[in-house]
Amino acid sequence: MVRHSATLAIDETLRARKAAGQRVLHLGFGEAGLPVPDEVAAALRDAAGRNGYGPVAGSPEARRAAAGWFTRRGLPTSAGQVVFGPGSKPLLYALLAALPGDVVLPAPAWVSYAAQSALVGKRVIGVPVPPEAGGVPDPERLARVLREERPGVLVLTVPDNPTGTVARAEHVRAVCELAERHGLAVLADEIYGELVHDGTPPPVSPAAWLPARTVVTGGLSKSLALGGWRIGFARVPAGPWGEELLAGVTGVASEIWSSAAAPTQAAAAYVLDDPPAVLAHVAAARRLHAAVVRAAHAAFTEAGALCRPPEAGFYLYPDLAPLRAGLAARGVDGSAALAAALLDEHGVGVLPGEAFGDEPGALRFRVATSLLYGETEAERWRALRADDPLALPWIADALDRLRAALAALTAPPARP
Amino acid sequence: MVRHSATLAIDETLRARKAAGQRVLHLGFGEAGLPVPDEVAAALRDAAGRNGYGPVAGSPEARRAAAGWFTRRGLPTSAGQVVFGPGSKPLLYALLAALPGDVVLPAPAWVSYAAQSALVGKRVIGVPVPPEAGGVPDPERLARVLREERPGVLVLTVPDNPTGTVARAEHVRAVCELAERHGLAVLADEIYGELVHDGTPPPVSPAAWLPARTVVTGGLSKSLALGGWRIGFARVPAGPWGEELLAGVTGVASEIWSSAAAPTQAAAAYVLDDPPAVLAHVAAARRLHAAVVRAAHAAFTEAGALCRPPEAGFYLYPDLAPLRAGLAARGVDGSAALAAALLDEHGVGVLPGEAFGDEPGALRFRVATSLLYGETEAERWRALRADDPLALPWIADALDRLRAALAALTAPPARP
Repeated sequence: MVRHSATLAIDETLRARKAAGQRVLHLGFGEAGLPVPDEVAAALRDAAGRNGYGPVAGSPEARRAAAGWFTRRGLPTSAGQVVFGPGSKPLLYALLAALPGDVVLPAPAWVSYAAQSALVGKRVIGVPVPPEAGGVPDPERLARVLREERPGVLVLTVPDNPTGTVARAEHVRAVCELAERHGLAVLADEIYGELVHDGTPPPVSPAAWLPARTVVTGGLSKSLALGGWRIGFARVPAGPWGEELLAGVTGVASEIWSSAAAPTQAAAAYVLDDPPAVLAHVAAARRLHAAVVRAAHAAFTEAGALCRPPEAGFYLYPDLAPLRAGLAARGVDGSAALAAALLDEHGVGVLPGEAFGDEPGALRFRVATSLLYGETEAERWRALRADDPLALPWIADALDRLRAALAALTAPPARP
Repeated sequence: MVRHSATLAIDETLRARKAAGQRVLHLGFGEAGLPVPDEVAAALRDAAGRNGYGPVAGSPEARRAAAGWFTRRGLPTSAGQVVFGPGSKPLLYALLAALPGDVVLPAPAWVSYAAQSALVGKRVIGVPVPPEAGGVPDPERLARVLREERPGVLVLTVPDNPTGTVARAEHVRAVCELAERHGLAVLADEIYGELVHDGTPPPVSPAAWLPARTVVTGGLSKSLALGGWRIGFARVPAGPWGEELLAGVTGVASEIWSSAAAPTQAAAAYVLDDPPAVLAHVAAARRLHAAVVRAAHAAFTEAGALCRPPEAGFYLYPDLAPLRAGLAARGVDGSAALAAALLDEHGVGVLPGEAFGDEPGALRFRVATSLLYGETEAERWRALRADDPLALPWIADALDRLRAALAALTAPPARP
C-alpha cells in the first residue's frame, strides 16, 4: 500500500493535536502560511463562471502567461512548451511516468520524488549532496555512480527542499554536463525559485546548462502560498524531444486528472503576467520567510546543531551530530527517534531526515518555519507587513518555544 | 506512451476545427454544456481566501456534506467514509491502484477505465453488456468468465456512459451476487446518478446489494456541469476493509495530487447539502438533457439505426448494423471508419465504439448531445429555461444537421 506522504501526514497529525488542545510548534509542513492577495482572489472570483474542462495542457491564456513568465526569467519559452496541472506534484508524477529509466535523486530530497518513482516502477538511486548546498547530487559522487549505473532521469531541486539552500552554479553545471554525457533527462523542480532571500541574481536554472533535455516545474503553492488552489506548471524544451514528452505527460494527465481547475488557471494567468501587486506581495513574502527562517537557524546553531545557512524559502535541515553522545544517552540514535522525541517530549513537529532519503542513523531533520506567521489571517497579514516580524508577539513566542525545546533536548541528562 | 484520452482528444480536435471556421456538430464529448448557477458560483467566490492544502481526503465540511448527500439517497454514510479528489477520474485511478487483482469492465465502458487499469498494471477483461441496458456485464457471461478468471475488481457504471441507459435492478443484483461469491470489489461509478430522466425511482446502487465491498464514485461534473472545477468524491464501505482502502487511496492521492482545490471543495460542500436552488437547477438540466437526447435518438432510429432509448444523461450508443451493406460499399467496415466518415464527410464528431472497448468491426459509436445547448452562456441559460428547448433555433438547427448527415451517410450510393 502507498503510505500517506510524510509531509501531508505530519500536517494532519499536528493539526489534529492542535485541535485537541495540545500545544504544538508546527515546523513539519511546507505550507507557505500566508493569505491570498486581494488581486489574486479577485482573479479567481472573476473566473467562477468557467466550468468547462478545457484543454488538458491548460488554457491558452494560462499557457501564454507562463511562457512569458519563463521568458522574462531568462528561459525563452512558447506557450506550446507549457503544461498546467493541479499542482506541480502531479506533473512530476506524469513526467516520471513518461520518461524512461531509473531516477537519480539528491540525498536528501523532497519526500515525494521517491514515492512517485516507486509508483511508476522506477528504481531510485540516491546520491548525497555537497556540503555547500542541497538540491543537486555531489558531482564527483554522481560521476562515480554513473560509471556503474544507467539511470534515465536526474531530479534537481533549485532552490532546495529540504535544505533551504541554493545549489552552487558550478555544481549545477557539473551535474548537467554529466547528464548530457550519460543521456539523462533532467527534472528541475524550481518551485522555490521566486523565494531566494537576496532576490538577485536568480539561481541559474539547469535548463540554462542542458536546454535540450531539461524540464522545469513550478507552481504557485510556495511563492503565492496557494497550495490549496492546486496550480502547477511545467516547461518542456522546444523541439521534438520536448513535444513527445509533453504528449506523454498530457496522455497521463488525460487519464488521471484531466486538467487543473479552470478558475484557478485563470488566476494563474493573472499571477504569471507579473502584475506589480503580485511582485510586491512575493517580495514581502520573501522578506518575511528570510527573517523568520534566519532566526530559527540562529536558534539551532546556538543549540549546537550544524546547519547550512538558509538561502531561499522557509526550510532548515539541522544536523545534531555534534550532540550525538548526549542524545544517544537518552535513546535517540537516529532521525526518526529524534523527530519523535521532539514531538512527544517537547511539542515540536519536524520531519526526520529519513523521510527525505537521508541515512536513518543521521541526526538530521527538516524544519519548516512558514507556519509560524500566525494562527489567523489578520496575524499573517501583520507578519507580512511588519518591518520587524520577529518582534510580533506570536512569532517571538514561537521562537522562544523553539529555543526552550532545543535547550531541553540538548541539556545534559539530570543526575538520578 | 500513454495516449491522450479519446474523449478529451476529440474535444480538443473539434474545438480546433470550430476555431478554424469549420462547421462541425460536436457530439464527441461528455461535457454537460450548461452554465454555473449563481448560488454555486457565489459559493466558490466566497471561498477564494482558502489557500491552505487541507487534508488529503477533503475538508471536514465537504466530507460531512457528501456523507449527508449519500445518506439522503439511501446509503447511510459517515464523513469518514468519504474522500474528495480533483474529479472522480483521479479517485478511480487511485482506487484501481489500491485494489488488488485484474479488472472486469462492461463492454462497452467509459474510455478511461481501461487506460487507468493499464497504467496501474492491471489486465482488463471486457464482458459484453445485456441488450436491455449498459453499464453492467451480462450476468450469464460474467458467470462464465468467472469460471476461468480470477479478477479482483468489477467496474459498474450506473447510469451508464456510453449507452445513456440504466442497468436493470435484477442485473445489478445478479452481478453483485457474483462479485460477492468470487470475492470481487465493485467500483460503482455513479457520476450520472442525478441525471435519470424520469427522476424517480433512483437507480439502485450496487452498494445496496454488496454493501461491504462496493465503492461508489461521483462528482459534480455532470449533474452541475462543473467538469472544469474538478470535483469528485468516493464513498468506501464502513468498516476495516473500507478504512484500509481509503488509506490506500489517500496514500496515492498524497503522492500525486494532494487534494482537490480548496475553493472548489467549499462549493461542493454547498452543493452537496442539496439546497433548493441546486435541486431546481439539476431538475431543469435533467429535463433539457432528456428532451434533446430523445430527439437525437429519434433521428438515429428514423435513419435505420438500432439504439437503446436513452434513460439518463446525454448519451446515445447507436448501432448501424442494419445499414452495414450500404456502408461497406463505401468502405466503412467498423467503428473507427464510421466515426472518421461522419467527421470528415459530414462534419459530425462522435467517438467510435472501439474507444469504449467494443468490437472494432461493429458499427457502433457514442453520441453526446450536451454540447448542442448553445455556443454562448446566454443561449445555454435559454435552453435550460425553455419549455420546449427543441424549438430554440440553434438546437433545432443542430438536430436538422444531424438528420441531414445521417440521411447522406445512409443514402444509397449514387450511380456512377
